[in-house]
Amino acid sequence: MPVEKITSLQNPRVKQLVKLRDRRPRDEAGVFLVEGYRQIRRALEKNIALTELYFSPDWFLGENELALIAQAEAAGAQTFELAKDAFAKVAYRERPDGLLAVAPQWRRTLNDVPSGPAPFLLVVEAIEKPGNLGTILRSADAAGCDAVIVCDPVTDVFNPNVVRASTGVLFSVPVIIADSEAVHAWLRARGIRAVATTPAATALYSDTDLRGPLAIVMGSEQYGLSEFWLQQADATVRIPMAGQADSLNVAMATIITLFEAVRQRAGR
Amino acid sequence: MPVEKITSLQNPRVKQLVKLRDRRPRDEAGVFLVEGYRQIRRALEKNIALTELYFSPDWFLGENELALIAQAEAAGAQTFELAKDAFAKVAYRERPDGLLAVAPQWRRTLNDVPSGPAPFLLVVEAIEKPGNLGTILRSADAAGCDAVIVCDPVTDVFNPNVVRASTGVLFSVPVIIADSEAVHAWLRARGIRAVATTPAATALYSDTDLRGPLAIVMGSEQYGLSEFWLQQADATVRIPMAGQADSLNVAMATIITLFEAVRQRAGR
Repeated sequence: MPVEKITSLQNPRVKQLVKLRDRRPRDEAGVFLVEGYRQIRRALEKNIALTELYFSPDWFLGENELALIAQAEAAGAQTFELAKDAFAKVAYRERPDGLLAVAPQWRRTLNDVPSGPAPFLLVVEAIEKPGNLGTILRSADAAGCDAVIVCDPVTDVFNPNVVRASTGVLFSVPVIIADSEAVHAWLRARGIRAVATTPAATALYSDTDLRGPLAIVMGSEQYGLSEFWLQQADATVRIPMAGQADSLNVAMATIITLFEAVRQRAGR
Repeated sequence: MPVEKITSLQNPRVKQLVKLRDRRPRDEAGVFLVEGYRQIRRALEKNIALTELYFSPDWFLGENELALIAQAEAAGAQTFELAKDAFAKVAYRERPDGLLAVAPQWRRTLNDVPSGPAPFLLVVEAIEKPGNLGTILRSADAAGCDAVIVCDPVTDVFNPNVVRASTGVLFSVPVIIADSEAVHAWLRARGIRAVATTPAATALYSDTDLRGPLAIVMGSEQYGLSEFWLQQADATVRIPMAGQADSLNVAMATIITLFEAVRQRAGR
């Protein structure tokens, strides 16, 4: 168990944890934050090598925290105890539970996409809202996608709110960051069809063949898909809309399209 | 245009607006809050009879606010100008835009469900999170449901965060509040099949006939469907899950099931 207890709000580690909420310091340090019992447990289950674990018993909600801390230590994490108000300063969740970890960022490339006879990929372009990106990762996990490719990210996947909204899926589904042109060339070279979803398409998503090697391509909240993907996609499809134009957001459109692909690919 | 300008944070109207964030005062007064330009515009478009409209030009973000205020006045709303800090006190959104309205609650019953040869209904039981209920209303709108029936509500539909998350759909999709037993008896009397979604079901949702008179029944976030619905439903179905058990939340499961029904009902 740890020896050091941090009480000062001016402690350099406390200051650094606060900075890591922002993208630039996060990228410079090559790490990201994982807050909360459930998220940290999932990171450990997926063998994410946590480098540091900060804990504050005053905030604990359950009884298993000490076992989790021991597990993180056994896996190589440095541990630090924080006084109550020091933890309040570093926590970014509304209801902290006294556990905050630092994990190394990873840099997967297109070469890390698992290979197989019929890849099932999700490509998302320039998603803006962390909550949407997290929900999209969960959807890809539930649908059994082999990987999620994030093109030209506006919100980076290591944003604390993406980590939280993904409910740990970020630690299990392969997430690759790349630019759109490289992704398109890579898909084409491997014979993977790019099917792009846009309200302007003529064909319905459910009338389109979504079996075989497939990448479903989704655009950003505000601008939809870029001209590049609209022109380069092998097919464009739309989801029928009965109500007001903005009832479906990008996360909802993604899950509808992914599960239609699941249905078709199950061969029913 | 209005004559009264409210500057005091102790003004009774200011205090009452703050109280209306909570369910009991809201139900006692029989009203609810609608905040923000877009929401208020949609309420007016759907002929919701706003009783009061509070505005504060210091917070305006655009140029069309005065036209909207005039429109609300023409439709019968009393209008009040608020000083900047008085508006900050009554606003519940993170980024207020200087517009907050009060609307009368409505009490629709099962008799208000639009009739037709093949009703397409969504029944949700005891949803807890306002964001989920709002997203579910949007999904029902996008899928063209004839009505949403909210059974035994935990979060009431007039919660400000439901109003916001529904992006105005609350003003257009008929939303009925009733208890589960009454809903079940009503469905049975009209020959409407109740198809309940639960991870414990054997049949896949996509292998089940979702055409004809249909009510899709969804349970709460934490407890799923009650024993009542699990036993009384005409069929139970599940969504196949490839990833971790909690990747699909109730809002995501709802939209998947609704759009499979849309696909089948289009006769393709």
